[in-house]
Amino acid sequence: MYKCSLERMSDKIRTMATFGDAGHGGITRYSLSAEANMARAEFKKRMEAIGAVVECDDVACMYATLEGSDPDAKRIVMGSHCDSVKNGGNYDGILGVMTGMEVLETIAAENIPHKHPITAMIWTNEEGSLYPPAMMVSGIICYDYLPDDLKPNFEYDNMMASTPMDDSPYANFGEALAANPFTGPKENRLSPDKYCAMFEAHLEQGPILEDADNEIGAVQLVMGMFNYAIRMYGFSAHAGTFPMKKRHDALHAMADFLCELHKRYDAYNEEVVAAGEPEFVFTTGEINVHPCIHTVIPDEAYMSLDVRHPNPEVRAKCMEILKELAANDWQQCKCEIKEQWVRDTVYFDERLVGFVEESMEEMGAKWQKILSGAGHDAQFCAYVIPTTMLFARTLKGLSHCEDERVSDEDCTLVATATLNAVLKCDASDEF
Amino acid sequence: MYKCSLERMSDKIRTMATFGDAGHGGITRYSLSAEANMARAEFKKRMEAIGAVVECDDVACMYATLEGSDPDAKRIVMGSHCDSVKNGGNYDGILGVMTGMEVLETIAAENIPHKHPITAMIWTNEEGSLYPPAMMVSGIICYDYLPDDLKPNFEYDNMMASTPMDDSPYANFGEALAANPFTGPKENRLSPDKYCAMFEAHLEQGPILEDADNEIGAVQLVMGMFNYAIRMYGFSAHAGTFPMKKRHDALHAMADFLCELHKRYDAYNEEVVAAGEPEFVFTTGEINVHPCIHTVIPDEAYMSLDVRHPNPEVRAKCMEILKELAANDWQQCKCEIKEQWVRDTVYFDERLVGFVEESMEEMGAKWQKILSGAGHDAQFCAYVIPTTMLFARTLKGLSHCEDERVSDEDCTLVATATLNAVLKCDASDEF
Repeated sequence: MYKCSLERMSDKIRTMATFGDAGHGGITRYSLSAEANMARAEFKKRMEAIGAVVECDDVACMYATLEGSDPDAKRIVMGSHCDSVKNGGNYDGILGVMTGMEVLETIAAENIPHKHPITAMIWTNEEGSLYPPAMMVSGIICYDYLPDDLKPNFEYDNMMASTPMDDSPYANFGEALAANPFTGPKENRLSPDKYCAMFEAHLEQGPILEDADNEIGAVQLVMGMFNYAIRMYGFSAHAGTFPMKKRHDALHAMADFLCELHKRYDAYNEEVVAAGEPEFVFTTGEINVHPCIHTVIPDEAYMSLDVRHPNPEVRAKCMEILKELAANDWQQCKCEIKEQWVRDTVYFDERLVGFVEESMEEMGAKWQKILSGAGHDAQFCAYVIPTTMLFARTLKGLSHCEDERVSDEDCTLVATATLNAVLKCDASDEF
Repeated sequence: MYKCSLERMSDKIRTMATFGDAGHGGITRYSLSAEANMARAEFKKRMEAIGAVVECDDVACMYATLEGSDPDAKRIVMGSHCDSVKNGGNYDGILGVMTGMEVLETIAAENIPHKHPITAMIWTNEEGSLYPPAMMVSGIICYDYLPDDLKPNFEYDNMMASTPMDDSPYANFGEALAANPFTGPKENRLSPDKYCAMFEAHLEQGPILEDADNEIGAVQLVMGMFNYAIRMYGFSAHAGTFPMKKRHDALHAMADFLCELHKRYDAYNEEVVAAGEPEFVFTTGEINVHPCIHTVIPDEAYMSLDVRHPNPEVRAKCMEILKELAANDWQQCKCEIKEQWVRDTVYFDERLVGFVEESMEEMGAKWQKILSGAGHDAQFCAYVIPTTMLFARTLKGLSHCEDERVSDEDCTLVATATLNAVLKCDASDEF
């Protein structure tokens, strides 16, 4: 059992938090920004200090590698991203980068023998906060291996034209990339020819570990999901002049629909849980109405619906309920629904999941199996090489905000679990 | 009984519809725009052609006056506005202007004797579509007479700085005004010293006349109203990682609140109608949530509420129900409400209402008493001089859209009713 260093991990956490410091405990560190480049430079400096070779690829992913004893062995890689959402926290993404760094630093400091080259990695533009979409660059790199329905989102040419959502010195992602010093040849990209396994450590972003009094989690899968646009069509009229019973109020219709959706989904969720499955989660995060004027009855309303569960049968039943509800009129308005995207559940590599679980158990950590409801670069990577993830306990489940917190101890614990899982993978004949 | 000319009215309707023609049956004619100036030039040309004297005031209101036989009599004025909402119709506002023009044209053509000077008027910027707020200039002109709670909305200095909501060659309302050719001295403003009565013809903007198979309506009052902002406060979390029961979803809370508000208000409306009162109308036209991202549970939701009824007791009970609901938590979210504005019912001058009703009856028109749920320049004017309004039947109740329609016959009918009511006023000893 090797252990990572709390002191060294804490130092990395404090240092990385300065790059993009937004002044109230969190950061804004858009991909390819000056702030992100400071984090990249820190990564390069610290990795070169322990003798790792740092390479970049054409989409600014960075790879720091410690050579192994077997010249024919493929690389084992650990990575995540160093970009954040606007006013995000000090852990989302960067925790996985710091974990990779800490693992290599521990291997170097303690002269831990290993056959495979071991690599710490930074993925570019996971959040997509400045240049959408999210997980852009893992999509580009893993493109050839993605299921056909995911491919259209990640064509290289389209991505280069992605324009900033906020202030940026560059007109689009392609220009930002061309100006970035941390780029190199396309041959340096992660690929199954050179890499045999990927571990991504991340904060949970939910309260499940905390509520169960567990410190870390061995992630089994990334839940499948569907995302639909729901629209109501009524007609507009003046707030002061139109009798109540003649109204076709699209917002009233949408509110009614949403309440009924909760009623139906809550009832079905009870069945799902009673059958021994985890609950499904569903979220209506976006709403808007037209014309959105206080004196006008809305003629159109739009709302997003996001539903996630590992079991395709549960998702299918959720979709069936949605379609059933959408077939009705609501407050004299017509309802239309449209699929935005659907993603199947991504199961992580059983062998790697096993190494993680064994390590956690051997460490005597308080750990559990857990599912990922959020998307991560690892889920695309899983189509290319064996992949898995580890989760760290998240204070109150908060993330994508400046109050996002993981204790230094839990950060170090997830690094230790990653180190030992990587070493088990290194020792295995199967990789 | 004098009658206005269908042919002349139709010609005005067709001509005015060309100024700002948006290409699909309606217009976009912002106040003080080139298109509005074309309508103003047409007004000036036609009014001068019948010998009326055209004056402008410092806020670009226009007054075309035919002198009367009594040099000491004050003016009787008819008016409305020539600006529209974006992609509005050919009747809202301009119908009242054309009515004033048609009345003067009929008086001139038929040499109808009258004691009082009679004036056709254009109010500036009633819609406030480009430069908010609505009814800006009638607010400014009537400022000294408005109730104290309305005054803060209409201070001259603030209004001049009102910035455009859409493309405009001018930085603010003040600059647009300074550049407008249809301005003159402040002394030309409508005032109780020079004016003794105001008639505003308008389209109903609702389906009440049409549903009752009536052509025109004698407006009794403008309903009192209150407008509240409703806010829900929960907290944000990731759509994929946060268990359903732990969520404090501000949009779910707002939808639940809205459905309950409808339930409570609908029940109370039945009581109101059973007691012989007209129903109250209530509208939730605006909604938005923060951060409005499909993968994030909203932590805040905002919705507007607009409630209108002539009877202050009914409005008070509506406010009581609102406050009762707001005192609860909704889906583990805290609810806050805030008054945006409150307006008392404005009762029109009984004598002028009487002249309108007598005229409608004598014409043999299909008419009824009606209430105005919408705001109009006349409601501010009513604080300054005796004022009333006439409504024309609106096809399907549609307004503020390009499908807004009033038949040429109904437009002419409302002009004839205005003409005869003005002549009754002219003949009365009380004015």
